[in-house]
Amino acid sequence: MRSGSSFLLAARQCEIAELEQLGRTGELVGAIGRFIHALQRERGISNIYLVSQGRRFATQRVTQVDECAVVEQEARGRFDELDTEATRVRNGSRLFSRIAFVLHGLDGLPALRERVATRELSPADASAAYTRLVNGLLAVVFEAADAATDPEISRALVALFNFMQGKEFAGQERAFGARAFAGGGIDAAGQQQWQHLIESQQACLQVFAAFSEAAVLQAEQAGRDVLALAEVERMRRVGCTGHILDPELSHAWYEWATRRIDAMRAMEDVLAGHLQRLCASRIERARDELRDQRALLAELSQQAASAAAPAPYGPHLERSILELVQEQSQRLQAMGDELDAVRASLNERKAVERAKGLLMAHRAMSEDEAYKTLRQMAMNQNRRLVDVAQAVLSLADVLPGVR
Amino acid sequence: MRSGSSFLLAARQCEIAELEQLGRTGELVGAIGRFIHALQRERGISNIYLVSQGRRFATQRVTQVDECAVVEQEARGRFDELDTEATRVRNGSRLFSRIAFVLHGLDGLPALRERVATRELSPADASAAYTRLVNGLLAVVFEAADAATDPEISRALVALFNFMQGKEFAGQERAFGARAFAGGGIDAAGQQQWQHLIESQQACLQVFAAFSEAAVLQAEQAGRDVLALAEVERMRRVGCTGHILDPELSHAWYEWATRRIDAMRAMEDVLAGHLQRLCASRIERARDELRDQRALLAELSQQAASAAAPAPYGPHLERSILELVQEQSQRLQAMGDELDAVRASLNERKAVERAKGLLMAHRAMSEDEAYKTLRQMAMNQNRRLVDVAQAVLSLADVLPGVR
Repeated sequence: MRSGSSFLLAARQCEIAELEQLGRTGELVGAIGRFIHALQRERGISNIYLVSQGRRFATQRVTQVDECAVVEQEARGRFDELDTEATRVRNGSRLFSRIAFVLHGLDGLPALRERVATRELSPADASAAYTRLVNGLLAVVFEAADAATDPEISRALVALFNFMQGKEFAGQERAFGARAFAGGGIDAAGQQQWQHLIESQQACLQVFAAFSEAAVLQAEQAGRDVLALAEVERMRRVGCTGHILDPELSHAWYEWATRRIDAMRAMEDVLAGHLQRLCASRIERARDELRDQRALLAELSQQAASAAAPAPYGPHLERSILELVQEQSQRLQAMGDELDAVRASLNERKAVERAKGLLMAHRAMSEDEAYKTLRQMAMNQNRRLVDVAQAVLSLADVLPGVR
Repeated sequence: MRSGSSFLLAARQCEIAELEQLGRTGELVGAIGRFIHALQRERGISNIYLVSQGRRFATQRVTQVDECAVVEQEARGRFDELDTEATRVRNGSRLFSRIAFVLHGLDGLPALRERVATRELSPADASAAYTRLVNGLLAVVFEAADAATDPEISRALVALFNFMQGKEFAGQERAFGARAFAGGGIDAAGQQQWQHLIESQQACLQVFAAFSEAAVLQAEQAGRDVLALAEVERMRRVGCTGHILDPELSHAWYEWATRRIDAMRAMEDVLAGHLQRLCASRIERARDELRDQRALLAELSQQAASAAAPAPYGPHLERSILELVQEQSQRLQAMGDELDAVRASLNERKAVERAKGLLMAHRAMSEDEAYKTLRQMAMNQNRRLVDVAQAVLSLADVLPGVR
């Protein structure tokens, strides 16, 4: 029969194993961040290439495709390293499903590039195809954040995920702005869409700020490309206030937006590094505690043996073990509570995903259409996307044909 | 490089492994239920033995201790069977911590029995000691329910947990009523406490009903000992309306309450059986789906090879694989949403636990005192325990010395 002490130690070992897995998740997320960045650049370059009817960025596009292939191999390598042997990975079924979706999309990447090269696709369609890939990769990061069992690390992952998502909205804005400037004009609906991309970035960066430590926030502020930010803001004002745009500005817009995004990419590495150090220090601490606990339990059982008390332990020893057990239970409970609070922030995104799914099922929409519908509703009603999503979900019961 | 299909299959295998683990959890919960029942009987018998100053139930107590030892071994055996090898068990750190707490408590059981035999303990103190053990075992069941990843099974586990918790309140009521009748009188505070034990049972059984399928509910209604219920209700009325009680009724109260509780115990087996069948059928279904998916993917890749399409798959095949991936993602997401909804019901208990912890830390109370304080507040304010707990938690920030 195993003793309470052995389960106490097993609980601690479980925690360490979970932390180690989170450390590996951190590496995976880093590789995904680099791959997403390359895809975002390729999307932007392809966009200008298509808008200019192949006159501009032809060589840059080829170079970027090669660079992208390198980080794609790195990300695929990280996927391969995942231990898919059953139940070892927390949240495995969802994580692996997301990866399957990404890998399926990547199988279509050569064909997508071919159609960009031969200019068979419209700029908007090409952008949308790259955006689907990026969203698939972000969903993998999301599942990783959702699976974290340590509140401090969960917090860092939520911050990183929102930063990555904010950067992706910045990338979409770059492509959108480049098309708008190159086209020489923008209508009211286009301006509204641009505004929405700006607000989406801000919302993500607010969550990022709310979940980041002071040191991380300071590093983020210090790492901003302030000049690029100012230029981006100036050109946003131009794009969102007038209806006729100077096509010559398209290139400058792309360059400034790229400088800003590249600074965000550098920041992602800082955040990923912070996450790694956090995991490493938590693992070290947990190992120290395990060692101390093991030593203390050994000492207690030795004392018990020599005291030969009538109860399995004397009252003093009994108290000590009980304190150990209670301390651990309370610590785990506090961690669980904190974790629930952190995870609540992920629920907003889940609500949007569910509302999208509902529209897809009920109105036979594609994922893009469903998202655009929600966004349009949010813009028309001047409400946040998540509030509109919640409203749609609350209608689920009265919509016919929806479970 | 691994393909999307291989991750699709890995996701499904993860699901199956999680279901298999839930199946084993079901067996563990069954063994815990039998052990709890024996401890409840031993508590009741010990109570009457102590109240009667050793004149009654002396031999029954010895017999019951022997019976209890048998089911204790069974439960310990189930604990030993758990694979404590790191990360294989979901929620391992919390589950193992709870088990450590239980095993520590069981180490003190021989000493407790000795003090009951020699009548060194008051009836109330002896009851409280058994109650702590039972609560520890219920906490193990709670963690098991909290770790379930399948919404249907989670629902069944939540129902079973609440039924077990309701039965425990019924057991506490049996001991309380036996002491009250045997003592020949009850004051207003005692009546309020009795009332509270009745309401606690009702609250648990309501959650049980809300999370149970119609067939299970019917079985539960059919399995009730209606005669015992009616007698229990009649004697509750006697106890809760007058202040002078007939000590002769103590025995009858104990017998009727026991009949009712024994019927609940039989019901637990029905519920555990339902859970087992649910797990088995979900595992079978998931295995069928895995086999179908594997066959479909093999067929698709064969077709792709013979078609030698320029893209890795022809447009038709691409569509089919994408559909598989999306279908699985959507199914997992729907399951996740449903699971969150089921788990919300567990949060009420967590709020009470947290509020207790807060009082223990802030007011240096024992766990029993903290619980009694919350219960007293609930009774005084005529509010539900969970509402009082939430109110206490919302004060956490303004209480000095509490994090």
